Amino acid sequence: EGARQLEAQRDTLSQQLQEVESRNRDLVEQLTDFEQRLEKSQNEQGVFRNNLKTLLEILDGKIFELTELRDNLAKLIEGS
Amino acid sequence: EGARQLEAQRDTLSQQLQEVESRNRDLVEQLTDFEQRLEKSQNEQGVFRNNLKTLLEILDGKIFELTELRDNLAKLIEGS
Amino acid sequence: EGARQLEAQRDTLSQQLQEVESRNRDLVEQLTDFEQRLEKSQNEQGVFRNNLKTLLEILDGKIFELTELRDNLAKLIEGS
Amino acid sequence: EGARQLEAQRDTLSQQLQEVESRNRDLVEQLTDFEQRLEKSQNEQGVFRNNLKTLLEILDGKIFELTELRDNLAKLIEGS
Repeated sequence: EGARQLEAQRDTLSQQLQEVESRNRDLVEQLTDFEQRLEKSQNEQGVFRNNLKTLLEILDGKIFELTELRDNLAKLIEGS
Repeated sequence: EGARQLEAQRDTLSQQLQEVESRNRDLVEQLTDFEQRLEKSQNEQGVFRNNLKTLLEILDGKIFELTELRDNLAKLIEGS
Repeated sequence: EGARQLEAQRDTLSQQLQEVESRNRDLVEQLTDFEQRLEKSQNEQGVFRNNLKTLLEILDGKIFELTELRDNLAKLIEGS
Repeated sequence: EGARQLEAQRDTLSQQLQEVESRNRDLVEQLTDFEQRLEKSQNEQGVFRNNLKTLLEILDGKIFELTELRDNLAKLIEGS
């Protein structure tokens, strides 16, 4: 009796362990997937940010050139 | 003897189950954390993107106003 | 004889004087016309110059607004 | 008596003619001066107008370049 009961407990535990381990593998897989998505997203954000920085530098240049044009117009008006 | 062996197996399995369940809770916690970070990151990206769209609209306006100024200068030169 | 000669000289001079005086009136008329054209031209240049000054001020405003936009873009990139 | 009177008339006319001719030369000089000033002023206006046209072309270029920048920013936002 005792042996049969112990055997049943052992089998139940063994099955539970398998189930929990299987669930574990799923979770690890999900985590790995999340990590990859987060890393990809961060890389994309980095590229995006660099592209924006390049546009900012171009905008700086355009503002500088418009300021030069403005100064030349001012000189032209003053000299006329 | 068989009973003792079964008892030992049951205890080992019980301990393994506890360990794997504890590991499981950790993984679920990590996943939840990741999900929150990813959601927060996506929200921030959304806000960022909306701010950029606002700047784009302002830039549109500035280009339009510079074009008006350009046209007025052209008319002034033509009429002089 | 002397009297006739003198009479002829007087008449010639009188006619020359009339011609030169007529030429004088033409020249004064031309001068007045020139003065009016020059004054009109200077007035037009003054109006033109004021219009250019207005455009210059508008351009100043646009450059200022583009610089604000540039600064907001820079802050957005830094904060991201 | 008649001869003396005629002589006096002739001398008066001769002097008036000289005065009017001198005034004439002054007027012609003033006219020439005016013409030169008007021509110089027109040349300067021509140079000024060409300088303004050059600035207008530069402004055209800047507006074109800002529009390119705007389009690149729009693409960046859409692609993000």
